[in-house]
Amino acid sequence: MLESESRTELTALGEFELIKHLTEFVEIYNTSTNKGIGDDAAVIKYEGTKSTLVSTDMLVEGVHFDLSYVPLKHLGYKAITVNLSDICAMNGTPKQVTVSIAASNRFSVEALEELYAGMLFACKNYNVDLVGGDTTSSKSGLIISITVIGEAEPENIVYRNGAKEKDLLCVSGDLGGAYMGLQILEREKFVYKDNPSIQPDLVGNDYILERQLKPEARVDIIELFKKLNIIPTSMIDVSDGLASEILHICKQSNVGCELYEEKIPIDPQTFDRAREFDLDPTVCTLSGGEDYELLFTIPMNDFEKVKNVPDFTIIGHMTAASSGVNLVAKAGTSHPITAQGWNAFK
Amino acid sequence: MLESESRTELTALGEFELIKHLTEFVEIYNTSTNKGIGDDAAVIKYEGTKSTLVSTDMLVEGVHFDLSYVPLKHLGYKAITVNLSDICAMNGTPKQVTVSIAASNRFSVEALEELYAGMLFACKNYNVDLVGGDTTSSKSGLIISITVIGEAEPENIVYRNGAKEKDLLCVSGDLGGAYMGLQILEREKFVYKDNPSIQPDLVGNDYILERQLKPEARVDIIELFKKLNIIPTSMIDVSDGLASEILHICKQSNVGCELYEEKIPIDPQTFDRAREFDLDPTVCTLSGGEDYELLFTIPMNDFEKVKNVPDFTIIGHMTAASSGVNLVAKAGTSHPITAQGWNAFK
Repeated sequence: MLESESRTELTALGEFELIKHLTEFVEIYNTSTNKGIGDDAAVIKYEGTKSTLVSTDMLVEGVHFDLSYVPLKHLGYKAITVNLSDICAMNGTPKQVTVSIAASNRFSVEALEELYAGMLFACKNYNVDLVGGDTTSSKSGLIISITVIGEAEPENIVYRNGAKEKDLLCVSGDLGGAYMGLQILEREKFVYKDNPSIQPDLVGNDYILERQLKPEARVDIIELFKKLNIIPTSMIDVSDGLASEILHICKQSNVGCELYEEKIPIDPQTFDRAREFDLDPTVCTLSGGEDYELLFTIPMNDFEKVKNVPDFTIIGHMTAASSGVNLVAKAGTSHPITAQGWNAFK
Repeated sequence: MLESESRTELTALGEFELIKHLTEFVEIYNTSTNKGIGDDAAVIKYEGTKSTLVSTDMLVEGVHFDLSYVPLKHLGYKAITVNLSDICAMNGTPKQVTVSIAASNRFSVEALEELYAGMLFACKNYNVDLVGGDTTSSKSGLIISITVIGEAEPENIVYRNGAKEKDLLCVSGDLGGAYMGLQILEREKFVYKDNPSIQPDLVGNDYILERQLKPEARVDIIELFKKLNIIPTSMIDVSDGLASEILHICKQSNVGCELYEEKIPIDPQTFDRAREFDLDPTVCTLSGGEDYELLFTIPMNDFEKVKNVPDFTIIGHMTAASSGVNLVAKAGTSHPITAQGWNAFK
């Protein structure tokens, strides 16, 4: 999935030259980045009393992504945004990233250029500085490891463990789209395998494909919280599916939860495709993952602040731990929620 | 190279359980670690006016390490210390690390336990907190990505670009040992391949084997700088070989250098083994790498401060950039220094 047509072998440049080449167009957007690429370590200085947030993710070809249908530019973009999302989930602002990649000789310099172009595009969109990393060879496939560093005022940081009984459970945006986008891509991959002359049929699936291929980090929601004077009592980003994330919050906060199926926000395109694939749209939101929306709890008193925000949906409320974690189905029946989210080892 | 005899498959635990299991014995040593493992991001708060230093490294099986002779515990220890060394090279103090690993199903839970035991042992020795990471599967082999975070007073940070003409070039410890240790291990690997009944002959090579298998980060030198009231004008750690590191400093500082061959500190064991292997000991120091000593420059006025420190050796001085970067050989002849250090893509 490469736009460029020429091919330069990685060995033609060597490690130092390759790093120099790939990072040639790196720009610095933040004054807190005192020193970026080019020394033994990056130097960061946040103003005043701010805390530093650090999160890291590793993406492995064949486990987390499939280059037969993911363009390298999109992969680069997504690799950055899913990491930024983790800083948002702490109610912080991402500011710097480091990027390490290991690539086999299957990859050309041009391929890595596209990967970097996607990463740098994400950095530009989010005003985040690429301040360091490592570039090395691998025995097979592509491995990407990203660390994101961000800032937050200590009193604004939101953990997973602060949800209280009677808090409202809210989510930004809509859910299940990234999973349905993946189903479309997987279907077209199999069609193509059987008959390579058939062009992929992706028409009418723009929204869910974008949710899968080019997810965004909800830094806009963090800004909105500030504007609305909201500090959630707990928060997590939806990377593994709603069920898994709710269970994390409940476990770490020692509370239970009632989640209302009818309240879960689902885009019509997600809903229609799920039906076509004979999938339950609710299950897609619970177990699909990769939506990178923010799931958070707020005190009931904050109801007035959120009720008219189009980006927020109240999907449930927290209960005593002894009541368990339950999905209240559209029919009114209640079912315990179990996690069937992403597991790299299954 | 596994001490434990039982074998639990990674799939038996799954991702969340595996992470929980591996990080069970993580201890926090620093008050600056406000939140470690267990949320979307770690939260770090350094006192007062301190800057944050960040560095990252990726280690790939078959490229950076060979498990046929490297015990997993040693690998874990080394993976941490080589990263800490990068913070030392900025005249900073390492405080936190994140650890991401991707492992194929060739690895058992017990194998990863040993790897983590080595990493946690290094963390304990250096008072460094493991605050986050990722654990996932790979299609082949073991990949380790570590990010280290450290602190320094802004005015104490030392870059590669501050060396001045007439500055003295100094190095801590001795050089070339790690490379000779590698030669011993490679030799024994080939002997073993030819005849698996022959036990490896490692006697009398303790020092150089330890230099290769269990290198230390010179945080003690950073402490010593403080005590001696020294702030180097430039600094780098010797990971790729003396030649490569000197060239980095000279290029980034826009100076030249005269390096005196007779001054380069070489341990007798390194020297003797090099001779036995028909290698030039000086070349081993110039191109070998992995010594993780600190190479730094100081103003001539600081000569009195360093001249009697047993851990420091003055190996040369900086000149005008136009004079080039030269090795003054024992015979008095001068040769331009070229880098033939480590290159993952060759």
